Amino acid sequence: MAAPPRPVLARALLQQCVSARLQVKPPEPGSEAEWVEIQRGLVIYICFFKGADEDLVPKIVNMLLNVQLSESESGKYVSVLDLPGNVLIIPQATLGGKLKGKRMQYHTNTEKEKGLVLYSQFVTLCEKEMAANAKCMEAGVFVKHGTYGNRQVLKLDTNGPFTHLIEF
Amino acid sequence: MAAPPRPVLARALLQQCVSARLQVKPPEPGSEAEWVEIQRGLVIYICFFKGADEDLVPKIVNMLLNVQLSESESGKYVSVLDLPGNVLIIPQATLGGKLKGKRMQYHTNTEKEKGLVLYSQFVTLCEKEMAANAKCMEAGVFVKHGTYGNRQVLKLDTNGPFTHLIEF
Repeated sequence: MAAPPRPVLARALLQQCVSARLQVKPPEPGSEAEWVEIQRGLVIYICFFKGADEDLVPKIVNMLLNVQLSESESGKYVSVLDLPGNVLIIPQATLGGKLKGKRMQYHTNTEKEKGLVLYSQFVTLCEKEMAANAKCMEAGVFVKHGTYGNRQVLKLDTNGPFTHLIEF
Repeated sequence: MAAPPRPVLARALLQQCVSARLQVKPPEPGSEAEWVEIQRGLVIYICFFKGADEDLVPKIVNMLLNVQLSESESGKYVSVLDLPGNVLIIPQATLGGKLKGKRMQYHTNTEKEKGLVLYSQFVTLCEKEMAANAKCMEAGVFVKHGTYGNRQVLKLDTNGPFTHLIEF
């Protein structure tokens, strides 16, 4: 008898972009909206589930930055670190939705406070990994990220999103 | 002992858009690229797995057009049929990728010919459902779709993609 499958602890959705622009602060009376923008690279939508812990984050970061899904100029698929490309991280709790009738439920998502801790750690580790990579430093590529808990207003321009789902 | 889980037969990814533009014919010597475009509505990325059959398609279409994920003007979440909103369908075989080392494999995707049959049926049924809906007809909303097998060059403008995954 096979062991029952371990519940999913995190879900990442990856899309390749030519450029992407994400609102990090909504407009308010007297102040305009604030945006971050990347040029060519990888958009990572990330969602953590109940049971996810700090130990998991380095594994996810390592996997996502090294998976070979970015099309190089020679047509070969390489990692975003090897491209090198920019990274835009978007917290996307809706990715944890489970269909119940005609509605989605989010009961298996991690608690909001814990999600913020994991998300912040995820962003920090991505930034560290990119900064530690000589190719990325030389090319001057960036990690940008959305504000946890905000509406993720996004404009995406792709040469084919080449959408992939990776679960942890 | 619980029954072993049934393998996934199809995976749909949903994003809400303010507008979206998809290339349906790449540029060629002497002819420009052709695009389709929708205004506000739902972007459906769809991928079929081995074992998926024609019987499954009406169930998927019914579910995706009726799931309540579109934000109405009153802030309530309604179906794309009730919004009513436009629909852009994107064939996205990469959604079937499974991680193996640092690469993705697509062994469980349906065969290409079968995938085209299922995709065409999916598009036709979506068009029928929208055409049969009085609200959609009155509002003049559209179903647009990508070309199966092409690179899916996409430009997406959202007020929050509100990304959801639904498996069948």
